[in-house]
Amino acid sequence: MEENENLEALDYESIQEKRSDELMELLDSRNVKELQRRMEDMNEYDLAQFLTELEDNRMPMVFRLLSKDTAADVFANFEAPEQERIINAITDSELAGIVEDLYVDDAVDMLEELPANVVKRVMRAATPQTRSLINQYMHFPENSAGSIMTSEYVDLKKYMSVKDSIARIRRIGEDKETIYVCFVISSTRQLEGIVTVKDLLLSDDDTVIEDLMDRNVIFATTTEDQESVSEKFSDYDLMAMPVVDTEGRLVGIVTVDDVIDVMEQETTEDFELMAAMTPSDKPYARTGILEIYRNRIPWLLFLMLSATFTSMILTHFEDMLAVCAALVAFIPMLMGTGGNSGAQASTAVIRSLSLGDTEPKDALSVIWKELRVAALCGLTLGAVNFVKMLLLDGMVLGNDGVTVAVAATVSLSIVFIVLFAKVVGSLLPIAAEKIGVDPAVMANPLISTLTDAVSLLIYIYIARLILHI
Amino acid sequence: MEENENLEALDYESIQEKRSDELMELLDSRNVKELQRRMEDMNEYDLAQFLTELEDNRMPMVFRLLSKDTAADVFANFEAPEQERIINAITDSELAGIVEDLYVDDAVDMLEELPANVVKRVMRAATPQTRSLINQYMHFPENSAGSIMTSEYVDLKKYMSVKDSIARIRRIGEDKETIYVCFVISSTRQLEGIVTVKDLLLSDDDTVIEDLMDRNVIFATTTEDQESVSEKFSDYDLMAMPVVDTEGRLVGIVTVDDVIDVMEQETTEDFELMAAMTPSDKPYARTGILEIYRNRIPWLLFLMLSATFTSMILTHFEDMLAVCAALVAFIPMLMGTGGNSGAQASTAVIRSLSLGDTEPKDALSVIWKELRVAALCGLTLGAVNFVKMLLLDGMVLGNDGVTVAVAATVSLSIVFIVLFAKVVGSLLPIAAEKIGVDPAVMANPLISTLTDAVSLLIYIYIARLILHI
Repeated sequence: MEENENLEALDYESIQEKRSDELMELLDSRNVKELQRRMEDMNEYDLAQFLTELEDNRMPMVFRLLSKDTAADVFANFEAPEQERIINAITDSELAGIVEDLYVDDAVDMLEELPANVVKRVMRAATPQTRSLINQYMHFPENSAGSIMTSEYVDLKKYMSVKDSIARIRRIGEDKETIYVCFVISSTRQLEGIVTVKDLLLSDDDTVIEDLMDRNVIFATTTEDQESVSEKFSDYDLMAMPVVDTEGRLVGIVTVDDVIDVMEQETTEDFELMAAMTPSDKPYARTGILEIYRNRIPWLLFLMLSATFTSMILTHFEDMLAVCAALVAFIPMLMGTGGNSGAQASTAVIRSLSLGDTEPKDALSVIWKELRVAALCGLTLGAVNFVKMLLLDGMVLGNDGVTVAVAATVSLSIVFIVLFAKVVGSLLPIAAEKIGVDPAVMANPLISTLTDAVSLLIYIYIARLILHI
Repeated sequence: MEENENLEALDYESIQEKRSDELMELLDSRNVKELQRRMEDMNEYDLAQFLTELEDNRMPMVFRLLSKDTAADVFANFEAPEQERIINAITDSELAGIVEDLYVDDAVDMLEELPANVVKRVMRAATPQTRSLINQYMHFPENSAGSIMTSEYVDLKKYMSVKDSIARIRRIGEDKETIYVCFVISSTRQLEGIVTVKDLLLSDDDTVIEDLMDRNVIFATTTEDQESVSEKFSDYDLMAMPVVDTEGRLVGIVTVDDVIDVMEQETTEDFELMAAMTPSDKPYARTGILEIYRNRIPWLLFLMLSATFTSMILTHFEDMLAVCAALVAFIPMLMGTGGNSGAQASTAVIRSLSLGDTEPKDALSVIWKELRVAALCGLTLGAVNFVKMLLLDGMVLGNDGVTVAVAATVSLSIVFIVLFAKVVGSLLPIAAEKIGVDPAVMANPLISTLTDAVSLLIYIYIARLILHI
């Protein structure tokens, strides 16, 4: 039992939960001194979580117990609603302190989410210098490298020695988002190279930066898509990446923690698009029902109206289907199989495109691959279905309509439907990428709507051939 | 025009492409000296890419032109097929050099992908020490923190001074995967705290580590799921995280670059599960058609056979549907709308669960939210469909079967189908998480198969009520 408790304590979540419970007790017993002491020891993310979970009226009060430095760190870890609540509860001078302590990228993130009147108050509280920097950063296009970069980096000159460089880091490093990658720039701020603290520490004091720096810098431009930035971080295992303007001047850096956020955001966007929803930046738990409704209804309407084609086909062949009523029973299965086959292909291709493993120029080899997979899947499904229809539907369930000819019709349809679905499912995402549309749109819902109609036509055509109706 | 060229050159991809072309020219003209010089200057990822794109026979030859250090770095950046090709082309002593230079996590990754005979040769080439370390690391469960950690970290003692610590980093830092986070351990290797190089550089030389270190360490245990590790990196903005055994002893570290790989891998897995495919670790472009077939066919078979229920329902109500043939034409649309509505809900919930925003205990509030969204969506879709059926299907397309009663039947069915689909779509992923199944399985294909059958029943029941058939 005791060992078990030991094991339990050896897990960060349990330790953190226990810590939160203790804070709550201190708060309930109004032991402010001890509460303050404990909070200062805690990780700022955990503290932000703890405060977020407090009821409204106590939260700003407890927040104001924090020291100035901790307060700014915790503030940066809040989500927009908590930030707004805090801003509305603190004085202008407290606000000024927080704004000046925030990294520019965190400040910009925050301002993009806040209502206009709160933004005004924050900007008034900032120094003119910070204000102009924030304004400059807020003008980069959404989802660009410029929109996620920050300005707190260490810059060095190539004629400096290692000793001078380390001295500079010690002097100005405190407020930098990272000190581990330093950026070597010319007098006109042109980016000339990078140097890591590891390089510095492992070199002699009088080595000159010029001889130490890596000139082969992996960089981004301000307008570059953030997805391309995060691909580079993943490919090159970077900690930080410089962002340059069109003249090659260093204007900011992107750090790996922001890239992880970008990756989560881009992935969520892909998931949403692939399930026919308009992407939203907000977490699901914090999105209101009207906003969820607005993100979903246009797609549902579009897909519902697109299904008019299947209705038209069914109406057109009503008489023919009435002749062999048994055929109708298998329409949902055929459509489902087409949709699922297409979704598999499109998902595989969409993901491969987004990871950069597949490019539009690979279209032919992808389709050739999917054609062969489709042939294998189609033949397997067709064969299994043939046996299943004769044994289960025909004999066990006693459906008289299921003759060998009907079973053959359905099974042969499966083969062609799977072939069609897999080819379309792999082709559409590549075509989308080619013309600059997000391939994630070409996923299950859209593919299904398309394969539904074509599946029906294939089915009816094969039924006519085999059953002569 | 000239400005345009300038702009083009200011983009890392173009620079890299030009560099590759130049290497290729040097190779074609057998200018080995210059080729070697250029390759040594390049980033190891780019170099690995360049070599991967060479035809088979030249690749190992060019690889052997690299210096020992560069060769090991490039080797770590290869995918398994290229690693195997190189291993088969180099001598035992070259292989030994590479194995000793690899970080343990990279070595383990590689060995997990290689065929048994190649693994044997690699293990024979390693020193006994490396061999036993690799063996130890390979025994951690797949996808655990232990399976992605590495052993090359800087450890400090709490009685050391800042000056001694920096001296230690300078002495042993060269081969460490990161030096920026150092781990303070006791004489029994118990983890006591962490200290960053930033802390060290910004402190006085004679500060003692004990006074500087952060005792509130965010750590993982060896058996902890890698997804939980990557969530912590994202929440706490970490660069490296210690991994401890059940006694709290430091056994390895996980670095942020590996976590980015984990995130990509876990996301791909979710995408694959959500499209009814068995997840595979291999990139799509490198997976053979038989393997793709094996990953896809079980699900397609299962979903196809599950559709027997819809067939049975349709067969059972054959006579009733024959009375009002117009009803059949709208079955695909109803099923599609049900499937799409359910997929939206399930995708939103699956993503929210995987980001940690929603937990099983939130089930009731999630369902309440989805119920309200479903009511809004269902009423909108029903109303639009009612008007559309009367105007488009009835008047424009002249489908006599579409009476006001039929339109009402279809539209009312939509409302209830959307309600059902959204509730089931949000409930199933949460239930899966609760019982320890990956919620991603409860996505579009499975939800659609379920809603297909229920949609039909809802439709038939409402048709009986309204049309008295």
